[in-house]
Amino acid sequence: MRRTIDWADGAVVVIDQTALPGAYRLLELRTVGELVDAVKRLAVRGAPALGAAGALGVALSAHLDSDVRRDAELLAHARPTAVNLAWGVERALGKLHQGKDAVLAEALALLDEDERLNKTASAHAAEIVLAECPRRPLRLLSHCNAGRLATVGWGSALGVVWHLHARGLVGEVLVDETRPLLQGARLTAWELAQENVPYRVQPDGAAAAAMARGMVDCVLVGADRIAANGDVANKIGTYGLAIAAKHHGVPFVVVAPSSTVDTKLADGTGVVIEERDARELTGYAGTPITPEDARVFNPAFDVTPFELVTAVVTEHGRFAP
Amino acid sequence: MRRTIDWADGAVVVIDQTALPGAYRLLELRTVGELVDAVKRLAVRGAPALGAAGALGVALSAHLDSDVRRDAELLAHARPTAVNLAWGVERALGKLHQGKDAVLAEALALLDEDERLNKTASAHAAEIVLAECPRRPLRLLSHCNAGRLATVGWGSALGVVWHLHARGLVGEVLVDETRPLLQGARLTAWELAQENVPYRVQPDGAAAAAMARGMVDCVLVGADRIAANGDVANKIGTYGLAIAAKHHGVPFVVVAPSSTVDTKLADGTGVVIEERDARELTGYAGTPITPEDARVFNPAFDVTPFELVTAVVTEHGRFAP
Repeated sequence: MRRTIDWADGAVVVIDQTALPGAYRLLELRTVGELVDAVKRLAVRGAPALGAAGALGVALSAHLDSDVRRDAELLAHARPTAVNLAWGVERALGKLHQGKDAVLAEALALLDEDERLNKTASAHAAEIVLAECPRRPLRLLSHCNAGRLATVGWGSALGVVWHLHARGLVGEVLVDETRPLLQGARLTAWELAQENVPYRVQPDGAAAAAMARGMVDCVLVGADRIAANGDVANKIGTYGLAIAAKHHGVPFVVVAPSSTVDTKLADGTGVVIEERDARELTGYAGTPITPEDARVFNPAFDVTPFELVTAVVTEHGRFAP
Repeated sequence: MRRTIDWADGAVVVIDQTALPGAYRLLELRTVGELVDAVKRLAVRGAPALGAAGALGVALSAHLDSDVRRDAELLAHARPTAVNLAWGVERALGKLHQGKDAVLAEALALLDEDERLNKTASAHAAEIVLAECPRRPLRLLSHCNAGRLATVGWGSALGVVWHLHARGLVGEVLVDETRPLLQGARLTAWELAQENVPYRVQPDGAAAAAMARGMVDCVLVGADRIAANGDVANKIGTYGLAIAAKHHGVPFVVVAPSSTVDTKLADGTGVVIEERDARELTGYAGTPITPEDARVFNPAFDVTPFELVTAVVTEHGRFAP
C-alpha cells in the first residue's frame, strides 16, 4: 500500500482525500503554493500527515531554489491547529544550512519515522485496550479518521484496530461519520473496508445511544495537538464523545505520535481552533441544505480535558502530563 | 401562516418537508396510501403533526367509504416511535359510530387543540427558561425540528423561542443540523429565518464545544414519546446532548403536548426505536458518501433518562413522573 504523502521525481505526491471513497486519485504537487492549497482544502489532512507535508514542502522549496524561509512561513500557517505542521517545517528547515539534499533527506527520514512511531504507539495502545476492556471480540468506536490517511502510513487510532484485527480480536468498529466533512464515513470506512474489518457507519449523534445500548467497549481517537497537561485538541465532536464515554464508563483512548505533543502549551485553553468555511455546512455536493445566507458555527476542532481521557498513548507508551 | 397539515376539499394537505428549504411545496394526499407514504418518507413528521396525520387519515378513509379499521391499522403503524400517531388514529376512530362527519369534526378539533396546547406548553416552558437562566439575551440550543413544522402550528420547543423572541429576549439560537436528515439545518433554520430570529447552524458534534465555551444558556428539545417516569424518546443525538448539558450545568428543557406522554409505558426502556434506511447515511442528494455496501447503525431516536432533564413541560406545566 502506498504512502499517504511521499516524494517522487521532484514533486510531493499525495492521495487526494477529497475524492475518496468515490475515486482513488493521486495529486502531484510541484509548487509550494499547490501544496499549501492541498493542505487548506484537506486533500491531505491528519496531524501526522501534515507534519510530513510541512517537511516535504520545505524540501520542495529548497529543490526549486525558492525563498525557503518565506515558503516555510506559508506552510507552517496553512492550518492553525495541528502542531505537527510547524514541527515538520522546523525539522526540515534545521538542515537548510547543509544544502537541499540534506533537507530532503531529513524530510524522508521524518516520513519513515512517522510510520514506525505510529506502529509503536498503536501497539502500546492495543495493549492498554486489551487490559481495559475484558469483552471479546472488541467493539470499538472511531471518530474522524486517524488511519493510514491521517499519517504517512499505518495510522494512529486506527493503527490500534490493525494490530487487534491481526489477532482476530475485533468484532466491529462503529464509525462516526464525522460531520461536516465526513472523514469517518468517507475515509475511515474506506480503510476498514480495504482491510475487511467489520464496521458500521453511524451519525455522530448516535454514539451516546450506542454506548447506552452496551455496543461500545472502547473509544479510539487521534489528536491534532496535545497540551503539556494532557488536554487533547481533536476533530469537532471528540469532546462530546469523551463526556458520553465517561458517563457510561467506556474507556476513551487517544493515540498519536509524540510530535503531536506541544510542550510549550500548558493546557488546552491555549489551542487556536480553526473555524472553517460556512459552505461546509450550508450545502453538500452542490445541493443547498440550509436557507440561503445561513450563518454557521463551524469549529474544526474541540478540546477534551485530560480528566475525561483514559490514556493518551504515544510511541513512548502512556503519556504522563 | 398556513398549517403544516390540514384538511381541504376531501384531501389531507401537507407542507412537503422533504422539499424545504429549497422549495415550499404543498402535497394534496387523496388516499390513505398516499398519506402513509408521506409519513414514512417524512414529508410530514414531528410527533404532534403525526397525531394530526393519524386523525385526518381516519377521516380521509371514512370520507372515501374505505375499510376504515384496516386503514387505521396502516396509519397507526406507519412509524413506530411517536405515540401521537396511534393516539390521533384512536381519537378519530372513537367517533366512527357517529358517521364520517363526526370523524372529520373530531380530527379538525384535534388540529385546533394541537396548536392551542403547544402554545400553552411553550408559554409554560418559556417561564421555566427565564427562571432557570439569568443571562439576557438568551442563547438557546435546538436539536432537530420541534417547530411549527413538527406540529399543526406554533411548535413545541421552538414555540418557546417564539414566545421569548416576541419579548425581545433571544440573542441567538444555535441550531444542531441533526444528521442524517438535517431537520435542524433544513427546517428549524428555515422557521427561524422566516421569523427573523438570529441563528447559527452547527454540526451536531459542535454542541458540547459550544457549551464549554459558554455559548449556551439552555437546550430546548421536543419529544416523540414520554414514558410515565419522564424518560424522553426524541431524535437521535438528544441523549448525547443531555449528557453534555448535565456535564456543563446547562438546563435541558423538553416541551411537548401531553398527547406525547404514554402513560402505559413505565420507562424509556420499552420504547420501540425505529431504525431507518442505510441510504440516509450512505449518500446525499445522489452523491455517495461511504464505500458501496457500507453497513450502518441508523436509529431515528434515542432515549434520555429523566434524571438528565431539567423539566419536561406540557400544556399542564411541569410534568411530574
